[in-house]
Amino acid sequence: MEPTAVTYIPSAYREVDEARLHDIIKTHSFATLIVTHNNVPHISHVPLLFDKDSNTLRGHLARVNPIAKLDRNQVHNAVAIFHGPNAYITPSWYESKKTTTKVVPTWNYIVVHVQGKLRIETNPEWIYSNVSSLSDTHEEAIGGHWKLTDAPESYVKLMTKAIVGIELNIESILGNFKLSQEKKSDDFAGVLSGLKDAVKSDSTPNPSGSQGIAEWMERTQA
Amino acid sequence: MEPTAVTYIPSAYREVDEARLHDIIKTHSFATLIVTHNNVPHISHVPLLFDKDSNTLRGHLARVNPIAKLDRNQVHNAVAIFHGPNAYITPSWYESKKTTTKVVPTWNYIVVHVQGKLRIETNPEWIYSNVSSLSDTHEEAIGGHWKLTDAPESYVKLMTKAIVGIELNIESILGNFKLSQEKKSDDFAGVLSGLKDAVKSDSTPNPSGSQGIAEWMERTQA
Repeated sequence: MEPTAVTYIPSAYREVDEARLHDIIKTHSFATLIVTHNNVPHISHVPLLFDKDSNTLRGHLARVNPIAKLDRNQVHNAVAIFHGPNAYITPSWYESKKTTTKVVPTWNYIVVHVQGKLRIETNPEWIYSNVSSLSDTHEEAIGGHWKLTDAPESYVKLMTKAIVGIELNIESILGNFKLSQEKKSDDFAGVLSGLKDAVKSDSTPNPSGSQGIAEWMERTQA
Repeated sequence: MEPTAVTYIPSAYREVDEARLHDIIKTHSFATLIVTHNNVPHISHVPLLFDKDSNTLRGHLARVNPIAKLDRNQVHNAVAIFHGPNAYITPSWYESKKTTTKVVPTWNYIVVHVQGKLRIETNPEWIYSNVSSLSDTHEEAIGGHWKLTDAPESYVKLMTKAIVGIELNIESILGNFKLSQEKKSDDFAGVLSGLKDAVKSDSTPNPSGSQGIAEWMERTQA
């Protein structure tokens, strides 16, 4: 079978725990969607909803989006990338900096690649149901109360006419969790406290990335 | 000419201001790199340094990375995606929610697609210079002082042997700055204050995204 996408994940960083993979997909749901056609990547940035029962990702795109205009009678190889936190790791944080000095910088990050077959859906009821689920999910996340039924039905119909649904049937979920897990325990501990200190002292240009990496380092080592 | 990548950017969101585009590339430098080969996207996540003088992006990959193994005598169509902030926008924030009720949710975000030709560089001096610039840039950003010369020369040589350099010659920079700029001024103001309130009251699952979007909404409207 032709691969949907090719990516390099060193075995030390390959995450296979389903709960962790699903967590990233749900909490970082604004994905980079890539559909390759005639050797050219078609790229969109779109929130996708994971449905465990059907093993799919669902969302929608503007009808004028080139991905929405691909052959609707076919399914297309697609990959959706979910971006977790990322942070620069200075070698100063490694205990080995003081002993062997054999240290170099790196970048810790979490990404999840969901690969599968994408189909384009034009059924108005499917689309309505999808946008309704999408707003319910994200309203709940921010503690909001807006519902699709709060808008005039005719207006919602007009809006949904301008979009198509997309459904990605999942074939594989690849997690790249690069979290210093291959380091000696002293060096690992140094990175963890370095990240936390940087957040506390506001000395990182990317506090949410640093904090996110620190939290995941603790979580995956627990 | 065959396009390097295809992406849909509504004209209202297309950012052309060079300073803003370069700002995102520099402050969100951990990029998604896509090189398509035989109709399959090869995807890596890698920090890239922008060099304005040579109009290139530079970085490095593990030698075992499939992108590093592509034909080194050729250049390859590539796109590097830089991910700015993103945030869910609830219709509750629009002034129109109270009047016409003709409102639906959306997602605000900033992404920059840099397209061009990628070449693979194996010259050890080029690679040394690149990793040195990379650590200098990011050490400065976090207020650190580590230098490549702090590590034993033999160790650094060993490390750099395991990587190849990559240089992307930039052909285009496409900015998608979706920041409610097409909305009526009352609705725009409502989104802006909604985002700020959500950050302040800790009622957003993605405070850095909400804050980043709010800052860019103010900056691009100023």
